[in-house]
Amino acid sequence: MITIKGIIGLIMSQIDEDNQRAVISLGIGDPTVYSCFTTSHVAEEAVAHALSSAKFNGYAPTQGLPQTRMAIAEYLSRDLPYKLTMDDVFVTSGCTNAIDIALCILARPNANILVPRPGFPIYQLCATFRHIEIRQFNLVPTKGWEVDLDSVQALADENTVAIVVINPGNPCGNVYSYQHLLRIAEIAKKLGIVVIADEVYGHLAFGKNPFVPMGTFGSIAPVLTLGSLSKRWLVPGWRLGWLAVTDPTCIFKQPKVHITFLLKSILKVMERLKNFFDIYGGPPTFVQAAVPQILEKTDDVFFDKNIYILKQTSQSCFEGINKIPCLSCPQKPEGSMAVMVKLNLSILKDINDDIDFCFKLAKEESVVILPGVAVGMKDWLRITFAVEPASLEEAIRRINSFCHKHSCQPDRDI
Amino acid sequence: MITIKGIIGLIMSQIDEDNQRAVISLGIGDPTVYSCFTTSHVAEEAVAHALSSAKFNGYAPTQGLPQTRMAIAEYLSRDLPYKLTMDDVFVTSGCTNAIDIALCILARPNANILVPRPGFPIYQLCATFRHIEIRQFNLVPTKGWEVDLDSVQALADENTVAIVVINPGNPCGNVYSYQHLLRIAEIAKKLGIVVIADEVYGHLAFGKNPFVPMGTFGSIAPVLTLGSLSKRWLVPGWRLGWLAVTDPTCIFKQPKVHITFLLKSILKVMERLKNFFDIYGGPPTFVQAAVPQILEKTDDVFFDKNIYILKQTSQSCFEGINKIPCLSCPQKPEGSMAVMVKLNLSILKDINDDIDFCFKLAKEESVVILPGVAVGMKDWLRITFAVEPASLEEAIRRINSFCHKHSCQPDRDI
Ligand SMILES: Cc1ncc(COP(=O)(O)O)c(C=O)c1O
Ligand SMILES: Cc1ncc(COP(=O)(O)O)c(C=O)c1O
Repeated sequence: MITIKGIIGLIMSQIDEDNQRAVISLGIGDPTVYSCFTTSHVAEEAVAHALSSAKFNGYAPTQGLPQTRMAIAEYLSRDLPYKLTMDDVFVTSGCTNAIDIALCILARPNANILVPRPGFPIYQLCATFRHIEIRQFNLVPTKGWEVDLDSVQALADENTVAIVVINPGNPCGNVYSYQHLLRIAEIAKKLGIVVIADEVYGHLAFGKNPFVPMGTFGSIAPVLTLGSLSKRWLVPGWRLGWLAVTDPTCIFKQPKVHITFLLKSILKVMERLKNFFDIYGGPPTFVQAAVPQILEKTDDVFFDKNIYILKQTSQSCFEGINKIPCLSCPQKPEGSMAVMVKLNLSILKDINDDIDFCFKLAKEESVVILPGVAVGMKDWLRITFAVEPASLEEAIRRINSFCHKHSCQPDRDI
Repeated sequence: MITIKGIIGLIMSQIDEDNQRAVISLGIGDPTVYSCFTTSHVAEEAVAHALSSAKFNGYAPTQGLPQTRMAIAEYLSRDLPYKLTMDDVFVTSGCTNAIDIALCILARPNANILVPRPGFPIYQLCATFRHIEIRQFNLVPTKGWEVDLDSVQALADENTVAIVVINPGNPCGNVYSYQHLLRIAEIAKKLGIVVIADEVYGHLAFGKNPFVPMGTFGSIAPVLTLGSLSKRWLVPGWRLGWLAVTDPTCIFKQPKVHITFLLKSILKVMERLKNFFDIYGGPPTFVQAAVPQILEKTDDVFFDKNIYILKQTSQSCFEGINKIPCLSCPQKPEGSMAVMVKLNLSILKDINDDIDFCFKLAKEESVVILPGVAVGMKDWLRITFAVEPASLEEAIRRINSFCHKHSCQPDRDI
């Protein structure tokens, strides 16, 4: 089974330890190694305070502390045309755990779910463990990595229970328009399936489209909204996430009323959710207890600064990459922390494929990037631009010199 | 599906809010609500320090931080006849998550596992989600709640993959002797199955038998040792646990060498473990980072104090309960935080069963205890004695007066 961390580990092991140069990783979306990406004081203080109060060393209710669920409901409701309540929100161990829970509660014999290609491999892994079949639809690089809606309809059948939408997108850096999200919701309605909206990069949008939560269309098709503090607050190691049932028409809660709609996929979803949380235990109580402060009190200056840096680094990444002859970025990233880059092998003399490219790049230049095959796109690369600007520039210089060295026509490339 | 938290929630809802008396819960094993059970300064400082260093806000390796795995390996090795390495240890979100992982990696079509009755219902829940059949063997109240080894052998068949041993025991308060654990290991060997040793209450022993880790017998049958900081450090809300492969003869690692032994249950266990952790994410990195300090630096005075209190409260619980005519404790608790109490319904006039007892007790006396049916023993009760001594005494007084009120022969009871 393919995992990003597994592949990055293999690539790291190629690095020549005698090489004097610092390793630069554009591989994993964890910006916390760079000093320009540190979390807000408010967040750190909130956790420290909850810990030292000694009031949160005991078990939390399995679905999360009430104040935490309430705060997340309010946070998400700010951007929705209706209000969520605490009963709609479940606190999870990061978005990863929310993905697993979403798949687990939708699992049933012969079920399949539709996931994007390129996509996020955790969906495949969770589906394997939950005995759910995965069917991949394409994102279209020439159309801002929008969902190929025709292929979605072609893939779905009576055993399809859900479609996964990652927006802002990893690995593509896309931010979908209101119109496109609406069309996805309408197709989900037509197919009678649930939308799993992975919004772990929620609000990390810095291009023409603002971030629109999928839950906006929850009255068209029910949406399970997944998110976490990981990316927006730059604390992936805190493992604090959520699963929110953004279902204003209450299809999940009253399956009998809507018996003709979604029957196959939603019966007992709420019941399964509750049971599932009992075996799970949730994130630490004191981290949960900090969430209301974190969501309510984080200064906009903190968010603006991070957006500003990401906008800069995404831009310099896009431009730098497009200057390298064997690489091209079909779409400028407008959100999240990563972008997909196409590899033109025909002008490289001794590189077999994306994996070979990444292995040799690590060995020769101490730069780590993810081969596209890890996200379902052979002979593409995924580059994470949530990196200190100087390191990113240096990495692009090294990639350039690597490509030059391996070019069929080195002279023309300079 | 039955969960302890679910049942306790129902019982809590019976409490009469007009009743002026404080609610006393002997229901859930979370002593942190009482000021006599607070965690050590060392532990709290270690987490605060790791948090404020800002070095642990990023993702940890999926199986845990190396220093954390190493520290847990060393901690467990102190009591074993061989040394574990960090590769044997996986960091989990509390022992609950370790249980789920153990079952998940042992799951295969038609698999069944043997679990104790009375037992811990999370095993059933996890098994249901992982499509594993549960078979219950009895613990014998008149023999210190030892495993009924004959019934174990009668239950096992070629699809049995593991036996669960909880020691020190919840809900019975048992601490098994070296000899008894050895016999369990020998039976596991004979049946060709794995031992899942739930040692979440490890070291919380205060009777005649010292705590002997099941891993001591790992060379007889491979043991998956599950544990956490939750109980010994009084921080169940921190969600920091572990799964250790205590398998000195490396049956898990080299299945081919031992092809005749355990073949059905262990092929690819190590591989499945690694994959599983990739979808899981683990506890917060900064909590993991605190573990080496916590395991190495916690003062014995802290442990001794807690053992002292638990010994006192277990004793007063045992004696107090045995003075109540309709209740009896067949076995004095010698470890963990709970004890099983037999209900004699024949001398009560208007109580139907254990659930009825607990509902009425909550309503009339604002005392919460767990009906035995929640742990597989109808018409028994589980009482948690990890409670402030004064509250425990008051609770027993109220239980006594409740029993008196409902007795067929109230006069004789006084
Ligand atoms: C699309 C997507 N979903 C989920 C996750 C996992 O988020 P978390 O770190 O909160 O578990 C990631 C992490 O990179 C991601 O890119
Ligand atoms: C026998 C047993 N195993 C596991 C657990 C769960 O431990 P944790 O809180 O570390 O998840 C408990 C909690 O009470 C328990 O009693």
